[in-house]
Amino acid sequence: MLWSGWGDPAKARELPDQIRTLLRDLMGVGEPVEAVALEEVRLPRPTLSPAALAELAAVVGAAHVRTDHESRVRHTRGKSTPDLLRMREGDASDAPDAVVLPAGHEEVLRVLEVCSAHRVAVVPFGGGTSVVGGLVAGQGVVALDLGRLDRLVSVDTESMVAELEPGLRAPDAERLLAEHGLTLGHFPQSYEYATLGGFAAARSSGQASAGYGRFDDMVVGLTVATPSGALDLGRAPKSAAGPDLRQLVLGSEGAFGVITSLRLRVRRRPSATVYEGWRFETFQAGSAAMRRLAQEGVLPAVLRLSDETETMIGLARPEAIGSGDSGCLLIAGHEKDRGAAAAVLAEQGGAHLGAEPGQAWEHGRFAAPYLRDSLLAAGATVETLETAGFWSNLPRLYDAVRLTLHAELGSPLVMCHISHVYETGASLYFTVVTNQGLPEWERAKRAVNEAIVTAGGTISHHHGVGRDHSQAYAEEIGPLGVEILRAVKQRLDPQGIMNPGVLIACPPPATG
Amino acid sequence: MLWSGWGDPAKARELPDQIRTLLRDLMGVGEPVEAVALEEVRLPRPTLSPAALAELAAVVGAAHVRTDHESRVRHTRGKSTPDLLRMREGDASDAPDAVVLPAGHEEVLRVLEVCSAHRVAVVPFGGGTSVVGGLVAGQGVVALDLGRLDRLVSVDTESMVAELEPGLRAPDAERLLAEHGLTLGHFPQSYEYATLGGFAAARSSGQASAGYGRFDDMVVGLTVATPSGALDLGRAPKSAAGPDLRQLVLGSEGAFGVITSLRLRVRRRPSATVYEGWRFETFQAGSAAMRRLAQEGVLPAVLRLSDETETMIGLARPEAIGSGDSGCLLIAGHEKDRGAAAAVLAEQGGAHLGAEPGQAWEHGRFAAPYLRDSLLAAGATVETLETAGFWSNLPRLYDAVRLTLHAELGSPLVMCHISHVYETGASLYFTVVTNQGLPEWERAKRAVNEAIVTAGGTISHHHGVGRDHSQAYAEEIGPLGVEILRAVKQRLDPQGIMNPGVLIACPPPATG
Repeated sequence: MLWSGWGDPAKARELPDQIRTLLRDLMGVGEPVEAVALEEVRLPRPTLSPAALAELAAVVGAAHVRTDHESRVRHTRGKSTPDLLRMREGDASDAPDAVVLPAGHEEVLRVLEVCSAHRVAVVPFGGGTSVVGGLVAGQGVVALDLGRLDRLVSVDTESMVAELEPGLRAPDAERLLAEHGLTLGHFPQSYEYATLGGFAAARSSGQASAGYGRFDDMVVGLTVATPSGALDLGRAPKSAAGPDLRQLVLGSEGAFGVITSLRLRVRRRPSATVYEGWRFETFQAGSAAMRRLAQEGVLPAVLRLSDETETMIGLARPEAIGSGDSGCLLIAGHEKDRGAAAAVLAEQGGAHLGAEPGQAWEHGRFAAPYLRDSLLAAGATVETLETAGFWSNLPRLYDAVRLTLHAELGSPLVMCHISHVYETGASLYFTVVTNQGLPEWERAKRAVNEAIVTAGGTISHHHGVGRDHSQAYAEEIGPLGVEILRAVKQRLDPQGIMNPGVLIACPPPATG
Repeated sequence: MLWSGWGDPAKARELPDQIRTLLRDLMGVGEPVEAVALEEVRLPRPTLSPAALAELAAVVGAAHVRTDHESRVRHTRGKSTPDLLRMREGDASDAPDAVVLPAGHEEVLRVLEVCSAHRVAVVPFGGGTSVVGGLVAGQGVVALDLGRLDRLVSVDTESMVAELEPGLRAPDAERLLAEHGLTLGHFPQSYEYATLGGFAAARSSGQASAGYGRFDDMVVGLTVATPSGALDLGRAPKSAAGPDLRQLVLGSEGAFGVITSLRLRVRRRPSATVYEGWRFETFQAGSAAMRRLAQEGVLPAVLRLSDETETMIGLARPEAIGSGDSGCLLIAGHEKDRGAAAAVLAEQGGAHLGAEPGQAWEHGRFAAPYLRDSLLAAGATVETLETAGFWSNLPRLYDAVRLTLHAELGSPLVMCHISHVYETGASLYFTVVTNQGLPEWERAKRAVNEAIVTAGGTISHHHGVGRDHSQAYAEEIGPLGVEILRAVKQRLDPQGIMNPGVLIACPPPATG
């Protein structure tokens, strides 16, 4: 992973000429911006006591407590555009003092004991791909890297459940499961680097969510190490035995503890996936077609609709960026017979475009983060944000986000797609390109958060809360909802060491 | 509802001669037992202060605070067999002092304020159909009857979401939704009397769960009145905005607060449902067929498999009880094309029995509780219990429950069916008939709870925890899980007035 950007530098993408022209002539994006060199990145002076470091080394072994420059830089923040822009400027002021790599559940428990005793904040770190400030805990922090918890522990092909460790990256998990003919079917844009623990802790949703569900749907059991001890949850697919405590850990983003094991629903690998494109006149018409597919229960595995702007720019087909297509492009990926879905799409006014647009999307499906690096290097600010709501409220949400971005950023390029649908609603995923700088973006982002809350949407469909959404999240769940989370955190993490600042803005109140 | 049993007395069922013979000759069940008359039921002396009663009357109106004999009797405990046996003997020692009927959310909030101030326990009461001791809070209690919260508030046919009030009984909810061509598709055995709020608070699952999901799957939003204020949750079908707090309220059984509004996913009413029967040689073979249907995603709306004993007794076909069929009867109810499911059932060795067994099941689908009344009157003890687990663990669970019942009860009749299936597992639902009395049954029930926990199952798939399962539930979620629930209860209900004793056995610790 590129420390100052995304992915394998060998896969970096040149910007197409049309985009360079658009950026310069239409958007007034200025000069290319070079990133500093790794060794020039500025780190804060460590404050972790030698005693604490020694105790951590006693738990995990000295080789697994890292305080070198590169390890600290590579565990600083996540991969949001503000994160990358700060890193490109050499600002690693949120770097952890040390990176600790435990070997398993018991070591995680003991690391949390040491950190509780020394009141050292702990940031669980999987793939480091948070885009919502989920890995920023202030200074004097330990990054708890789960990379050594990387095993496929067991496979139960009768129950179709596999136990996997949280530090497994998604491609490694797929490779291990493929040896058994199995798949999770979870392919978010962060797929190449994100880990299973992160998927669970932040409620990820992948590009095949129409067929495989969200990641939280796949979790049938989990083990969690907290400063107050361990939790082991999930004895059946579903239960009426009280509140579902699995659902309290899912989405908790390391604020309560560290997920150390996951029991996940797996599926047989499909024999083939048939991708295709469809064209709809308007976003509304395409959205209505998706709604019918969801409500009639004939969803393909992959379903994604670009709005007019995203279609025109060609963002759904990275090879075709700048192609200037009209209408709205819908991509469908079928693992079963496509007949029922195709009939609905045609009935709703879709024009079949054949396989090519679908294959192009599939080919470039993990390319967007690379494209962002190129845009940032060209001097543009580009970022994504997302929400979800009930179908009848989607137009209001769509308008609210776009109007706010235009009001805040002058003439940004705002593209949108729907890529996760349910019987009762869907997500909206926006990509924004602007010539404005980081302070202007951050002001606009706060305004959009407020607009989403006011328009009745949820502040995140699959990115999570982190620090960037904690204010909006508090408004979404209300003061009593925040109090519930505080009460749970206080009980599981009385010293407040677990990823402080994520989910709920303030530290828990003093005991009593 | 019959105060000392189930349902409409006019629908009471005579026991077939074969069953009378079986009870007498094979099981040694003794003489018929008469229930006392309603006016002979013994109530505890009320301890609620006149001041508290006056304040409650000021909130809901004097006509909606009831302290008469019949109201108190009718709000005593639920409908488990121990509940009915005690009531038939005239023991209403757990009766509430008063029944309070608020008109809406604001009145519920104010009732909870009054009860918090006077430290009066509150038992939310919907249909009164708990079979796990969910309505037993000791003496000096107020039963909060939700019967006046009975409106269909709104219907959003674009999002397929309806807002309904919690006091609505299921048939009334279906009638109101049918005016819009809609259905919840939720038909548990308690259907005729249970309320929507109870379904949510206890995580009900209905006979068409294979097609419509569990009730908790249908809840996209809810409003809750707690002693600490209101919660309003659910802005989208799914969200990555933190832990799903809806899932903390679902299954909370009134221990945190009172659900005052539900936003539920609805569906179009099916044009027709085709019921049919299949015969499998063994329970294992039928179970394997159900597993394939779930894992291949070709589930009918209704799917239910009786084991050899249940099939022989004919419990799945109340009109045919005592018919002595062999093998295992599977009932399927199709709302869509039955081809894919039928092909799997045939491939797995099922013999198609045609429509008659399916129609017989459908005709008698809500009859079992009436049958229980007749068995109790005949002097038998009959009760149901259930669990769920992953597919590979189901045989162990099945054996553990049966062996324990036989060890505890001599030669009981133990029947089982599978009626809720998932990709990764299923539920097991047992019906037990014995000549033993209540103390022996209660000892056996405790032993079964322990056996389920030891065998790795969940203590309830759809009955809930109540008081009867609180010990097993504590073992299932572990001490730290219990601590989480205590922390949440302490924050939402600092005086501990909400349905004390359900979910978690002990009262919350003192503040601080």
